[in-house]
Amino acid sequence: MDILSVLEDKKRKKALTKEQIEFFVRGAADGTLPDYQLAALLMAIRLNGMDARETADLTMAMARSGDMLSPQVGGVPVDKHSTGGVGDTTTLILAPLVAACGGKVLKMSGRGLGHTGGTVDKLESIAGFRVSLPEEEFVSIVRRVGCAVVGQSAQLAPADKRLYALRDVTATVDSIPLIVSSILSKKFAAGARAIVLDVKAGSGALMPTVEASIQLAQAMVDIGAHAGRSVIAVVSGMEEPLGSHVGNALEVREAIDVLAGRAGGPLKTVSLFLGAQMLVASGVADSEEAAQKMLAEALESGAGLRKLKEMITAQGGDSAVCDDPSLLPRAPYIRPVIAKTAGYLSHVNGTALGLAAQRMGAGRVRKEDPIDPAVGFVMEKRIGDRIEKGDVICTLHAKDETSAREAESRILDTLTLSPDPAPRARLLYALITPKGVTELCQ
Amino acid sequence: MDILSVLEDKKRKKALTKEQIEFFVRGAADGTLPDYQLAALLMAIRLNGMDARETADLTMAMARSGDMLSPQVGGVPVDKHSTGGVGDTTTLILAPLVAACGGKVLKMSGRGLGHTGGTVDKLESIAGFRVSLPEEEFVSIVRRVGCAVVGQSAQLAPADKRLYALRDVTATVDSIPLIVSSILSKKFAAGARAIVLDVKAGSGALMPTVEASIQLAQAMVDIGAHAGRSVIAVVSGMEEPLGSHVGNALEVREAIDVLAGRAGGPLKTVSLFLGAQMLVASGVADSEEAAQKMLAEALESGAGLRKLKEMITAQGGDSAVCDDPSLLPRAPYIRPVIAKTAGYLSHVNGTALGLAAQRMGAGRVRKEDPIDPAVGFVMEKRIGDRIEKGDVICTLHAKDETSAREAESRILDTLTLSPDPAPRARLLYALITPKGVTELCQ
Repeated sequence: MDILSVLEDKKRKKALTKEQIEFFVRGAADGTLPDYQLAALLMAIRLNGMDARETADLTMAMARSGDMLSPQVGGVPVDKHSTGGVGDTTTLILAPLVAACGGKVLKMSGRGLGHTGGTVDKLESIAGFRVSLPEEEFVSIVRRVGCAVVGQSAQLAPADKRLYALRDVTATVDSIPLIVSSILSKKFAAGARAIVLDVKAGSGALMPTVEASIQLAQAMVDIGAHAGRSVIAVVSGMEEPLGSHVGNALEVREAIDVLAGRAGGPLKTVSLFLGAQMLVASGVADSEEAAQKMLAEALESGAGLRKLKEMITAQGGDSAVCDDPSLLPRAPYIRPVIAKTAGYLSHVNGTALGLAAQRMGAGRVRKEDPIDPAVGFVMEKRIGDRIEKGDVICTLHAKDETSAREAESRILDTLTLSPDPAPRARLLYALITPKGVTELCQ
Repeated sequence: MDILSVLEDKKRKKALTKEQIEFFVRGAADGTLPDYQLAALLMAIRLNGMDARETADLTMAMARSGDMLSPQVGGVPVDKHSTGGVGDTTTLILAPLVAACGGKVLKMSGRGLGHTGGTVDKLESIAGFRVSLPEEEFVSIVRRVGCAVVGQSAQLAPADKRLYALRDVTATVDSIPLIVSSILSKKFAAGARAIVLDVKAGSGALMPTVEASIQLAQAMVDIGAHAGRSVIAVVSGMEEPLGSHVGNALEVREAIDVLAGRAGGPLKTVSLFLGAQMLVASGVADSEEAAQKMLAEALESGAGLRKLKEMITAQGGDSAVCDDPSLLPRAPYIRPVIAKTAGYLSHVNGTALGLAAQRMGAGRVRKEDPIDPAVGFVMEKRIGDRIEKGDVICTLHAKDETSAREAESRILDTLTLSPDPAPRARLLYALITPKGVTELCQ
């Protein structure tokens, strides 16, 4: 076996054999294949594609390129993954809610980069919270509490680490087989048996159209079936931030508010929908309706908030923030952004909004950048809302007036006001299970 | 300008702008772009192609990535390039013949690698011959003698050097825009104003079919017109070695034999055809017929052989070999290969035959390998010949009996005998000039 024959075959649009795929994945993981040959192969895969069997082989080869965990958590380990969004705090809401319903949520999460936030960064805004735990401790917390959220381990799917870094610099990110294998290999290696995927659609999403997002979702559900894992995918909108809060501590606060029954809206709707799929995928509930009912009760009774507290305590954090969110880091400079004109909010550039938060200090430009947990903003208006001159459009939480002024101008630039009434943004487009695609209208 | 947008555009099959092409060629030449991004781009170009304008821009950008020579040779500098063949000694015949007719042959030649020989290696089998000359000396010999053959300079088209090395290891050699730009950029940089290209067709050739070879030839003629150079291409066959001699000193000997009127056959036919195109392309002759006549006279009168002597002397070599080829290095072990069965020679694996010579020591496996100038073999039979049991198929020139035994078995493996009469191999398929394609039947 040699890499040139693999390149030659994919260049000629042949399906690669399982052995060829295992060969180049091994070479990516152990460093025996140079970057330039992998880069050429990634471009050939991006342009000539891979069929379902190749994608499944690639996913399993990448999963097996490092440790393969089989955590004993006293139930079916369930994980949830989102393909990236702004102000998307669903994990912090659904992990404790699903755990409160008897699910075993084993969540490995990334750090934020670019315009999207990372759950691990958000949790670190809670004093003492540890996102890096030894495997046994992580598993034992999931077993005991029902949920835990940690950062990604370097020992899992090392081939993906290398290929992902190369894709980023060779314009080969937008390839369904490469996306599918990257996401699922890590989940499979971490031991998740049930996985719910939140595939974003719309501007700034991985895939440019709703149809392409459904295709991607379908491919992931298929690979799950191939690999004997229960995978359900949801295609959701990202026309604007899901929650109103953007920024690390601000998003933790919003999650607590939802769990405490003080906040609702799209963030709650989507969290409950995804949570229900997790309960179904892991077999805790036998129907979506039953799952919805269980989740509503866990929310109503405060059991979800109690689970969040338990999880924070178990991971070394100060759970008092759940009763008093003002204990979370607070920015020194808080002030509103006032509307200078009237109209209907018809469009929001979500990517640019995420970048505005990043520039305030809430996110990273490079991986090694520090972040400021306190800064960000709270949007007071959503797409479809009528705005009058003088209304508060959003509240800035900045480190100083200069940063606030810059953020104000950036944020205003992301908003389009129209003289005519504008429809609300679509939240959910489709549910994809091994049984098929169901269109959603929310 | 950044490389990701270039990658993105070519990935989406957009034509790259001149600025984008100049940007990545500069980055290849000065080392600011890493191998992996260039490798991904090469694969994208291989799969999504480049149009004629892009290919012309790429060729000129590569030519300008290093020194651009304008040698004053007292006429139109003409060069000839072959896309690789076994036993192909045309350069050693046509360079002095064209010079004897008044042409100015400025030949930069490569070393052999793999199954094909290199003209520079062949010339080095002549005692004292220098293939590395200062530019002024090279130009002055062309001006005075009419021809000179030297090795490729590192200062010419450095971007090609880098991209060529990457293509070789990323399965992106077989791309028309990449082949065209690689060949022509070096010729343009070296100052050739007229260029005759010998594009090989058949098994082991750069392009898999005659049609693809004609396409490649056409692309090169087009780029020549774009760049204001006179480019003519010939598509020729490589079903078997062009000459009967394979090996460095052996091929020099055969070239001398042709120039001395002692040998003929396909090597002479193709050399005269290509030489005529060189005289036409450089404006020395105003028709192919006139050129053929001039060349026949130069051959007949011995003027061609005298030019070869002059060139060898000018480049420091011992020109006595032209009168007494036995002065060339001779292998210690010479013996025939005898036919064990009878039949018509219907097929020769030319690539494998080239590799048999390489294994005897006539060629290199790696660039740094030394070569043995004396070894090789002389084929006594051509495709279409009737072979009787006991006939001499070829004569081996080996370093010892072990090497001869190995070569015998390798050579016999390359030959297919058929019970039925087999047609001769086609020598010339097509002539491509800016005026169009002419089919050739030789």
